[in-house]
Amino acid sequence: MRPELLQNVRTLLPEHHPRPEIELLYAMMRDYPFRGGKGVRSELLLLSARAHGVRESTAERRSAGWEAALWLATTLELFQNWVLIHDDIADDSEERRGQPALHRQYGVPLALNAGDALHAYMWGALQKAGLPQAYAEVLTMIHRTAEGQHLDLAWVQQGQWNLSESDYLDMVRLKTAYYTVVTPLRLGAIAAGGQPDGRFEEAGTLLGAAFQIRDDVLNLIGDAALYGKEIGGDLLEGKRTLIALRWLETAPQERRELFLNEMAKNRPDKRPEVIGTLLGWLLESGAVQDAQSVADTLAERGLKLLSHALSAAPDQEAARTILALAEGLARRQK
Amino acid sequence: MRPELLQNVRTLLPEHHPRPEIELLYAMMRDYPFRGGKGVRSELLLLSARAHGVRESTAERRSAGWEAALWLATTLELFQNWVLIHDDIADDSEERRGQPALHRQYGVPLALNAGDALHAYMWGALQKAGLPQAYAEVLTMIHRTAEGQHLDLAWVQQGQWNLSESDYLDMVRLKTAYYTVVTPLRLGAIAAGGQPDGRFEEAGTLLGAAFQIRDDVLNLIGDAALYGKEIGGDLLEGKRTLIALRWLETAPQERRELFLNEMAKNRPDKRPEVIGTLLGWLLESGAVQDAQSVADTLAERGLKLLSHALSAAPDQEAARTILALAEGLARRQK
Repeated sequence: MRPELLQNVRTLLPEHHPRPEIELLYAMMRDYPFRGGKGVRSELLLLSARAHGVRESTAERRSAGWEAALWLATTLELFQNWVLIHDDIADDSEERRGQPALHRQYGVPLALNAGDALHAYMWGALQKAGLPQAYAEVLTMIHRTAEGQHLDLAWVQQGQWNLSESDYLDMVRLKTAYYTVVTPLRLGAIAAGGQPDGRFEEAGTLLGAAFQIRDDVLNLIGDAALYGKEIGGDLLEGKRTLIALRWLETAPQERRELFLNEMAKNRPDKRPEVIGTLLGWLLESGAVQDAQSVADTLAERGLKLLSHALSAAPDQEAARTILALAEGLARRQK
Repeated sequence: MRPELLQNVRTLLPEHHPRPEIELLYAMMRDYPFRGGKGVRSELLLLSARAHGVRESTAERRSAGWEAALWLATTLELFQNWVLIHDDIADDSEERRGQPALHRQYGVPLALNAGDALHAYMWGALQKAGLPQAYAEVLTMIHRTAEGQHLDLAWVQQGQWNLSESDYLDMVRLKTAYYTVVTPLRLGAIAAGGQPDGRFEEAGTLLGAAFQIRDDVLNLIGDAALYGKEIGGDLLEGKRTLIALRWLETAPQERRELFLNEMAKNRPDKRPEVIGTLLGWLLESGAVQDAQSVADTLAERGLKLLSHALSAAPDQEAARTILALAEGLARRQK
């Protein structure tokens, strides 16, 4: 994320305490935000603020709208970071941004608590923005993301694989699209003092779903160094992906059974060589290409709608940059 | 908690969704708040609002200050409930308010997520109060509680038993006193449009520490039906209590080693018969009486200071009820 946001995080979060144990809590709260996330959601929010007429602060002139937008962007980044701490616990993930997940370093109880503290400070960042209208946006974002996370986890827990493309899309719209695209676009408009265009919701859910499908693909075939998580992690965590759901539709009975049998195991009981075999089957089946083409269609529809929604925005140069960024998200190869 | 607060919770939290899986999330969010907690913290807040001059709403006359106080009280109750969901995960507790802990019913991932969603709605309740000054209070409350929770858990994780009475008191002041006494008193003053008396912080930390010592005692010798958690749970969870710290100071070497050895085990490896023996040693040693007498001293100092702090409050009848409630908390026998 950009230096102004890191600076906001630095000034907002506590740092020093006479008790070394409590300084550890503070260090844990600061850990993920400083692991070098790309900050695409905050960039999208700041671009949306500019597109809606907010001028960037300069060395000569401080812009109140821009400072508010920076605090909203900080809010989004803190949201993502506390959610990642808790998601990593829920999935028992090994790595995050190329380093061990927080609960693998400090244990579940301390990491869970540090995530809660970071969640509270996220609302502190939102207060700094001083925009009462933004509270309902942030609550909706967390509510939707929690619904999507719940669907994802409930399917894993209930061993539910009898799912359609539409079930999958419902889940990723909730889990990913709000905090990745819909809310950043809307908060940018709010930072400019306006009412968000109603089409941001539909455009954002299409683009967010495309983004999540690409993420699922990268989880299978990405470059671990660029991707920042272990390749094949979704298979180890038994995640429902469009790729797996597509493959299951036409897989031979015997392979299907072996797949479902392996997915039903707890993570520590899964055998790496079997996961490797399953990965090979998914890759050779064409399910990855199928999923990519679903993402292409979603991306195209989303970009078209977003382009209409931004056509009357006061800063058309920023609007074009939003479309380029959204296209990068929805078509990303890394 | 009182019916008006349950009604607030009912109207605030989502209830119906076309997807049954998501209705399960909603049911999980509503679960703890409707398990019949006593609601002492919200009562203290409402009494403080009255003492500071807020009139209760009546059938004839709606009082805006009282409605705001009710939403602040709802905020406190939602805070306690999401924290309890997460604490029960951190401690792997079996029971809460006489029923299985949420993660024991639905698994850690879903319970963790439901706690996060409830946390977000807590801020939604705070918005309903419409008192900007209250945000910093709630952030401070969560910050302090997370610090106390971190200390408690870090000592368990690091096997740290070399702790003084002052270490213990630092921990419980942070973990318990803010959300139980300090913040309710302060928010009541804020609901009345005033500035909280500076002495509430010191009085509240004294009374909150006394309350936590009584809670530790009840955990060892209470009536499970009234207490709502398993008796001896703190020993199973390896919690640092003043009783255990006092006992360790004078325990015979052999018993001390057996105690520390058992405490170093993970909960599933602890043997009930050994826990029973340890419990017997603690009870026969007089450490319980020692801890009670520390609590008596803290309670006396806290009540005296609180009485001074409330001496100029506009509603002296409510102020007296606060002192009676605080005395009940700090001297409670169940």
